[in-house]
Amino acid sequence: MVQRPTFDDLSLDAGRRTRLHRMMYEHGPGNGTLMILPIDQGLEHGPIDFLSNPDSEHPLYQFELALKGNFSGIACHIGLAEKYYPKYAGKVPLVLKLNGKTSIVPSDAALSTCTGTVQDAIRLGASAVGYTLFVGSPRQDEDIAQLAAIREEAHAFGIPLIIWAYPRGKFIDEKGGAKSLYAVTYAARVAQEVGADVIKVNFPEGVNEYCPDAYKKMKVSFKDQINHIMRAAGHSLVIFAGGSKGNDDELLGKLNDAMEAGATGVIFGRNMWQRPFDDGLKFAENISQILKKF
Amino acid sequence: MVQRPTFDDLSLDAGRRTRLHRMMYEHGPGNGTLMILPIDQGLEHGPIDFLSNPDSEHPLYQFELALKGNFSGIACHIGLAEKYYPKYAGKVPLVLKLNGKTSIVPSDAALSTCTGTVQDAIRLGASAVGYTLFVGSPRQDEDIAQLAAIREEAHAFGIPLIIWAYPRGKFIDEKGGAKSLYAVTYAARVAQEVGADVIKVNFPEGVNEYCPDAYKKMKVSFKDQINHIMRAAGHSLVIFAGGSKGNDDELLGKLNDAMEAGATGVIFGRNMWQRPFDDGLKFAENISQILKKF
Amino acid sequence: MVQRPTFDDLSLDAGRRTRLHRMMYEHGPGNGTLMILPIDQGLEHGPIDFLSNPDSEHPLYQFELALKGNFSGIACHIGLAEKYYPKYAGKVPLVLKLNGKTSIVPSDAALSTCTGTVQDAIRLGASAVGYTLFVGSPRQDEDIAQLAAIREEAHAFGIPLIIWAYPRGKFIDEKGGAKSLYAVTYAARVAQEVGADVIKVNFPEGVNEYCPDAYKKMKVSFKDQINHIMRAAGHSLVIFAGGSKGNDDELLGKLNDAMEAGATGVIFGRNMWQRPFDDGLKFAENISQILKKF
Amino acid sequence: MVQRPTFDDLSLDAGRRTRLHRMMYEHGPGNGTLMILPIDQGLEHGPIDFLSNPDSEHPLYQFELALKGNFSGIACHIGLAEKYYPKYAGKVPLVLKLNGKTSIVPSDAALSTCTGTVQDAIRLGASAVGYTLFVGSPRQDEDIAQLAAIREEAHAFGIPLIIWAYPRGKFIDEKGGAKSLYAVTYAARVAQEVGADVIKVNFPEGVNEYCPDAYKKMKVSFKDQINHIMRAAGHSLVIFAGGSKGNDDELLGKLNDAMEAGATGVIFGRNMWQRPFDDGLKFAENISQILKKF
Amino acid sequence: MVQRPTFDDLSLDAGRRTRLHRMMYEHGPGNGTLMILPIDQGLEHGPIDFLSNPDSEHPLYQFELALKGNFSGIACHIGLAEKYYPKYAGKVPLVLKLNGKTSIVPSDAALSTCTGTVQDAIRLGASAVGYTLFVGSPRQDEDIAQLAAIREEAHAFGIPLIIWAYPRGKFIDEKGGAKSLYAVTYAARVAQEVGADVIKVNFPEGVNEYCPDAYKKMKVSFKDQINHIMRAAGHSLVIFAGGSKGNDDELLGKLNDAMEAGATGVIFGRNMWQRPFDDGLKFAENISQILKKF
Repeated sequence: MVQRPTFDDLSLDAGRRTRLHRMMYEHGPGNGTLMILPIDQGLEHGPIDFLSNPDSEHPLYQFELALKGNFSGIACHIGLAEKYYPKYAGKVPLVLKLNGKTSIVPSDAALSTCTGTVQDAIRLGASAVGYTLFVGSPRQDEDIAQLAAIREEAHAFGIPLIIWAYPRGKFIDEKGGAKSLYAVTYAARVAQEVGADVIKVNFPEGVNEYCPDAYKKMKVSFKDQINHIMRAAGHSLVIFAGGSKGNDDELLGKLNDAMEAGATGVIFGRNMWQRPFDDGLKFAENISQILKKF
Repeated sequence: MVQRPTFDDLSLDAGRRTRLHRMMYEHGPGNGTLMILPIDQGLEHGPIDFLSNPDSEHPLYQFELALKGNFSGIACHIGLAEKYYPKYAGKVPLVLKLNGKTSIVPSDAALSTCTGTVQDAIRLGASAVGYTLFVGSPRQDEDIAQLAAIREEAHAFGIPLIIWAYPRGKFIDEKGGAKSLYAVTYAARVAQEVGADVIKVNFPEGVNEYCPDAYKKMKVSFKDQINHIMRAAGHSLVIFAGGSKGNDDELLGKLNDAMEAGATGVIFGRNMWQRPFDDGLKFAENISQILKKF
Repeated sequence: MVQRPTFDDLSLDAGRRTRLHRMMYEHGPGNGTLMILPIDQGLEHGPIDFLSNPDSEHPLYQFELALKGNFSGIACHIGLAEKYYPKYAGKVPLVLKLNGKTSIVPSDAALSTCTGTVQDAIRLGASAVGYTLFVGSPRQDEDIAQLAAIREEAHAFGIPLIIWAYPRGKFIDEKGGAKSLYAVTYAARVAQEVGADVIKVNFPEGVNEYCPDAYKKMKVSFKDQINHIMRAAGHSLVIFAGGSKGNDDELLGKLNDAMEAGATGVIFGRNMWQRPFDDGLKFAENISQILKKF
Repeated sequence: MVQRPTFDDLSLDAGRRTRLHRMMYEHGPGNGTLMILPIDQGLEHGPIDFLSNPDSEHPLYQFELALKGNFSGIACHIGLAEKYYPKYAGKVPLVLKLNGKTSIVPSDAALSTCTGTVQDAIRLGASAVGYTLFVGSPRQDEDIAQLAAIREEAHAFGIPLIIWAYPRGKFIDEKGGAKSLYAVTYAARVAQEVGADVIKVNFPEGVNEYCPDAYKKMKVSFKDQINHIMRAAGHSLVIFAGGSKGNDDELLGKLNDAMEAGATGVIFGRNMWQRPFDDGLKFAENISQILKKF
Repeated sequence: MVQRPTFDDLSLDAGRRTRLHRMMYEHGPGNGTLMILPIDQGLEHGPIDFLSNPDSEHPLYQFELALKGNFSGIACHIGLAEKYYPKYAGKVPLVLKLNGKTSIVPSDAALSTCTGTVQDAIRLGASAVGYTLFVGSPRQDEDIAQLAAIREEAHAFGIPLIIWAYPRGKFIDEKGGAKSLYAVTYAARVAQEVGADVIKVNFPEGVNEYCPDAYKKMKVSFKDQINHIMRAAGHSLVIFAGGSKGNDDELLGKLNDAMEAGATGVIFGRNMWQRPFDDGLKFAENISQILKKF
């Protein structure tokens, strides 16, 4: 099994050490794991995501949840950061998500352009910036170039870079889909190669007949898959997205397995706030308990 | 019901406070509501809009209406601002509209590029800038990036940003159209996420069978719809466009309902000036009376 | 008596809130007071300051003292920050001191030029920048201009500005000296006027015959003097320097009085490290106990 | 037979002399030949390349191999360089690869965009930069322009430019394919013309009926082909890629022939690390022995 | 006794590691010590320095001596670097001296302005830049600011900074002179505080009655003095200048003592080349033998 990289493995300069330390050791579980709350779904999926729990549409819901649930950080776009973060400044670390798109436009040639800048992140006191890279998209050429400029500026100013590494687009669909082990692992490796300090990926869902030959008949357990991803990520830390809200026990089980296989934590959104506030807090506490074991 | 955000809820810096305060408390109804007169239809629709009231084609018509009708501000492009605003400077707040397009080109892949700059707005003494964002357009990637640069500069200089949040393009048409509750609400949320201080949307017209499943069978009153939009807009203020000229009583009724459901005001153009000047003034007075109740 | 300004009184943007919160509530006494350890004396006074405790010459001595003594932050120049801070990054907040001079050159027309930049502070993850302003110096014109550029950049990026507000130069000497209430109070007010978030001053030593008429016969207790300074500082927080090492009890007494009169804390250097390490820790603990009462 | 250009033939300025000297005479075989280890396959092909030797997925595997195997340099993207190079800084020269793409997207209109910059290369202390130019791609216009900017900046700062000169795209496929002598030679010449100091090409595989007339009936031995490429490269040095792992003896034979025909060395990746570490070291030693003869 | 800092103590980024490693481990004695040959005396003192050995006036004399004598590097201004370094590029590391002045103008208010830039150093492939800082000069304010800009740019590009730390000017003369332990030590500390990676100082010559009280009656052996300086330099490496040519045995004895007390090496010029070439080589060999012991 691959061991999670240590803080010192990460080759971080003083600024990134300071900012990542804040999220990994001063907030959240506090043991070097990460528990991040994302609230960019209003942009990515639209208000539809809030229908099942209307209170959750007000961003203060998530900011309050991040504070009370003792998250390592909250991730959002500039509009929410400017409006709601000031009240929470210092109390909850901020991850400024720098690019996004709506789900109205099909994602066969997906590219998320920028809503904010590294300088926005600096002036807000953010602890990291987030960037969605669509690996395998027909527009990945533009995406890689756009990311490179952000990576260069972020690292020049000591800001950690979290890459949402998402396989996406028609060529991914042809090769087994965005959740195949092949696609998730490739995305993780690309994120490492282009300079991610932390990589967000989805839980992999095995292999299938459309995957490249070397993968299609692979026999892999869930933990094998996670480990495969960890190898691809090297000295970038890996955190897992929860995706749409599912069964709690199953998700916690997956998380425990993933942590045993070398993951660093979670970035769960809908699983956190598509339920009553107090239930969300309890679920956050359950996640935190698991993370604290590692 | 959602309450309209208070001025202090808006997390504004001193510059935006100063400028928005001017429109919200020193001009117009003066109670924190907004009544803005837009005159960009000559660019957006062409002189066709002035045929029913030829006098209205001269921009001084609208500037005079804005002054005499005690509007919170007048919104126009740089050409009109440079030519007609000097005489009204200080008397009517200016919203410099920064991007636009004609209706000659089909809007299935709409993008409005810039006619003016934030620096134009500063040197003219504008109280805000306006930007049209076509949410869901195939070119929303370019739109988001273009807006982000304007948002960054405007906010760096303390200039409030009003986003004309318009669902637009072929994918919107496929999902129920630009006036469906789904589309208007999504547009409002996107505007909030990318940094709008004020959001201009059209009155929603319910749901239909082409909307996403979660919406298509929704039973919603007009006020429910407005409220749904208010939730999507969070701590961005929402003002409603009037669209093409219609029945006055119906429009006033809608406005009253919208205000009860949390709106901040109106940005009515054709309904104001596609009628004799004095009638326009009277209608403005009617609008103002409603706004003053909230 | 003047009350210490609250955190919310300070009119801070999100970035400064985040960074100052870190020093005021997450490190040091943690109750909104400040206990900062400065180690710039090697530049300002030379190695002569370390002769009485040779171990203290190695900057790791002060970094370790700041960590073990649970200080709110450590203040030093770029050379020390680049060499020693990385190991402490995240564990002790950094105040990057941006200007300095040696004591070899007489201070009758003192001006400290810059050793580092705001961008250095950002990339190192500093929680604040420090600047020495020589109020009253024949070169205060250059000083004010130099500071203004730093203040503008620091605040644009959300970095708190701590001003070492020192009356200095031949004209100060003619008017009662650098420690007179007149001079210290004037310096504090200037620092507030030019944009200090936090002001460092020396303990005042009353008035004398060379002070301006309005001061020279003033009857003021020590606490009256502190209060006088607090009024001059307004909504800038005030921290006191300890100066050369003196009597502990006397210094603790002064500190207690100053805190009662509205001070926010201390920035004591030589009093901390011109003694054996363990004694320094004990003294830090004594200081901390006093600060925690306020 | 063409002679390999001498160091003085290369018309290098002082900076490029310094940096290339380091790779050619101070590391690797040390006699003016080059033996470079590339580790960008995780981005170019994905983790699939590591399946046959899972240990090789950790980039430290290649860095350690480059050190222990006494390579002239290691070539990788910014993400790996920032994470793993610091420990090897000074011990193994770095070639920062500046552009790349994944193999998920078809290569019929290939273009690799930039992951890093010349300034990244400078600040990391790299001895050269690498750039993939897809000669003949429908997007070669963009490629040439992108390269020109890099060439200009690299040479302005004395950084040698290594061009991965790859014939690619549908038009190449129509004209005999990427490995035909026609295509490889053309690519080498283009690389020389646009400013390569060193050119990486694949071993040519002769001619075929789809090649242009002048080539299709050419009778050429392997050494003739290499010589043909050398002539195309002029005073740019030529190094050969090994491609996917093949038969060792055959590869060493080809290398010996290529060196006799004027080549400068190799850039073998998969042939090095798709085998146990000690076997890789032995193979590196075999390569080195051959290079030292020239 | 203070130990010489280890390479890892220096908190260097990858670029500075690479470049300093070259001088410390790949050239010169090769054991982490430094033996640098300066040839800037033609600017600083004029051709008068070459009168005793006319051959030495041709800069190729020093370049050849640096190569044959296996120095860690040669330090010179841009004019010599552009004219003579290309032939030695790669063979002898270059330290580009960035500022200087003549001895015609009195040095009571000394300031050396720049002859070259950090960008010159990069494009020449220099392994470090050199800067003369006149500590205590009436113009030290200008000096500190000029240096800070160079330090920031050099470190941003991974270029090590060597500070010629020279006490200078009328105030130094008043306080015991430029060679007093007080002055040399203070200069070393200032160099550390402003960001030197390596500090060049002169051998100290004890204390005298004009030094500050704390120094004037100090009883210190030569090794005590060196150690005192090492403490002031902290994690900056210290190399000693030889000054005007003196007695060889005495100089070697001093060097041996200095190395025992924590020095890193020498930067001897006139002692090297104010003698026949072969004698210079022999003396270099003697120095090297001493350095290799440490």
